[in-house]
Amino acid sequence: MEAGEFELIDKIRRQAGQGAELQLGIGDDCSAINVPPGHSLLTSTDLLLEGVHFRLDWTDLVSLGNKTVAVNVSDIAAMGARPLCLYLGLGLPLSFSDRQVEQFLAGFFASLEDYDIFLAGGDTCRSNGPLMLAVTVQGLCPEGQLVTRAGAVVGDDLWVSGTLGDSALALGCLLEGSPLPAPLADRHFRPIARVKLGQRLAAEHLATAMLDLSDGLSGDLRHLLLSSGVGARVVLSQLPLSEEFRQALSGDRTLIDLALSGGEDYELLFTARTGSRARIEALATELPISLQRIGEITSGSELCLLDAAGQSYQPRRQAFDHFDRSRSHQP
Amino acid sequence: MEAGEFELIDKIRRQAGQGAELQLGIGDDCSAINVPPGHSLLTSTDLLLEGVHFRLDWTDLVSLGNKTVAVNVSDIAAMGARPLCLYLGLGLPLSFSDRQVEQFLAGFFASLEDYDIFLAGGDTCRSNGPLMLAVTVQGLCPEGQLVTRAGAVVGDDLWVSGTLGDSALALGCLLEGSPLPAPLADRHFRPIARVKLGQRLAAEHLATAMLDLSDGLSGDLRHLLLSSGVGARVVLSQLPLSEEFRQALSGDRTLIDLALSGGEDYELLFTARTGSRARIEALATELPISLQRIGEITSGSELCLLDAAGQSYQPRRQAFDHFDRSRSHQP
Repeated sequence: MEAGEFELIDKIRRQAGQGAELQLGIGDDCSAINVPPGHSLLTSTDLLLEGVHFRLDWTDLVSLGNKTVAVNVSDIAAMGARPLCLYLGLGLPLSFSDRQVEQFLAGFFASLEDYDIFLAGGDTCRSNGPLMLAVTVQGLCPEGQLVTRAGAVVGDDLWVSGTLGDSALALGCLLEGSPLPAPLADRHFRPIARVKLGQRLAAEHLATAMLDLSDGLSGDLRHLLLSSGVGARVVLSQLPLSEEFRQALSGDRTLIDLALSGGEDYELLFTARTGSRARIEALATELPISLQRIGEITSGSELCLLDAAGQSYQPRRQAFDHFDRSRSHQP
Repeated sequence: MEAGEFELIDKIRRQAGQGAELQLGIGDDCSAINVPPGHSLLTSTDLLLEGVHFRLDWTDLVSLGNKTVAVNVSDIAAMGARPLCLYLGLGLPLSFSDRQVEQFLAGFFASLEDYDIFLAGGDTCRSNGPLMLAVTVQGLCPEGQLVTRAGAVVGDDLWVSGTLGDSALALGCLLEGSPLPAPLADRHFRPIARVKLGQRLAAEHLATAMLDLSDGLSGDLRHLLLSSGVGARVVLSQLPLSEEFRQALSGDRTLIDLALSGGEDYELLFTARTGSRARIEALATELPISLQRIGEITSGSELCLLDAAGQSYQPRRQAFDHFDRSRSHQP
């Protein structure tokens, strides 16, 4: 780093963007947001640490900038809300060059524009260790539209957007050093938060409970079941899989566990009344986005996975635990 | 760490506390806050990195937990607002024991209680590098009471709370390995955010501009001057100094630069009309807190420091820059 802290802050400030709700942005002790009447203010925070969440020898910095925004915005999508702004904590290693900072910021600000949100604040310092990113997102939700994890009811359908396991399969390729098909690389390095889908499901009161899949389907689903006080039955043959994933699966059937428990899908998992099926299918066509029914909500508290023969299936991996050393991205 | 991520989150969740404005707390994808009508929502974010902002061989973890809260809440105090809640990003080194995590959390939650705020969310993971703390604070400010950095007017008095330079002097003692008097250690390891003072100055429309001193008086004051489009004259002999600081100063006159440019005072610097002097002095007696006039706002854009002889004084150090390697806490 040639540039000093205040030069960097100036550079960031010039690209921060703005919104009608922003009363006071970067350059004071706090941001000030005017929350429109009849809305809740939503907030979520994420850490992204080099060697734990990403490796700089695998990802380019523009993609890392994209992903930093997307994983955080995905939490707003999961509530059915509109993302508003981000706060960026940036701990830069001594070895980081101005060019590297610029690449990261280019990806970061491009994604802010994609999601039509602005940067409202942050903190920058150097790091004696690896690159550290701390992001906080704020969003707005009209009263009565918030979709939590707690609203699933026995008999509800269980739906998921997009395809599962692609990001985890990409990570597997990277760890093994095997060839990485471009579509899988995209899913791992440049995930997309399902903002429009989340908002429509909430605004049209279709989703009864929802979350985004960051730690893996089975683990994240367990959080939803616990919050709602219900169980679920998931049919493995219904899991939406990409062409690349199916191809890999045909060579190794155990890879199905990556669709069940691999992390970083950033798809939306939601429950809905059976009577909403036609409207959800119409929404999928309209957006357009792939939406798949993968099971149903049951009484009790168990998550039951059924294989092709209708037998209970026990995956060997559980949800991603950021303290589990075996799942580290560390070289 | 023996405990897994979800155990730790459960432990944190049980101590999180709550507030009337909290619609949805820890355990969903986002928190949801109901901002009372006629209020702005304020937000600030800080990184605290081991080896840059603190050293674990110097600070105990309970104090680090206290300080993590205080430095973030101080940004809310600087706007004259009421702190509401915090979000904690916790990157824990592999070497960290459950006992160490507990000590940090004990200090952290004790301070949340002191400031009467709750924890509304966060993120935990392990760190392959040093201990990393990312904190985001939210606060509420009634319409028309927000005190920014931009409101200073030519002729205003310049005021500061408490005493200056104690934290920087403590850091100097630590770096040199010289004895550290307890009052200085308190200022460095257990700073206190001036929340009540900030709120009263705002509610009674006494402060025209305000910020908290985190990077050092002269550097932070320059930010205020730039935002307000004014200059200032500061009289060195008026700087409020503790007994311990005066004692050190009597042995080395150059230490005055620590009161001017040493960071981490976490006092409030504010400007006020000359006609408000009596009310501000009454407030100081009432709270009680030491408040000192140290200069005045001038036209132009210069910061002029005057020594005892009325001559212009040039400090050798400028404001703390977190990219400046010479100021690192690194061993």
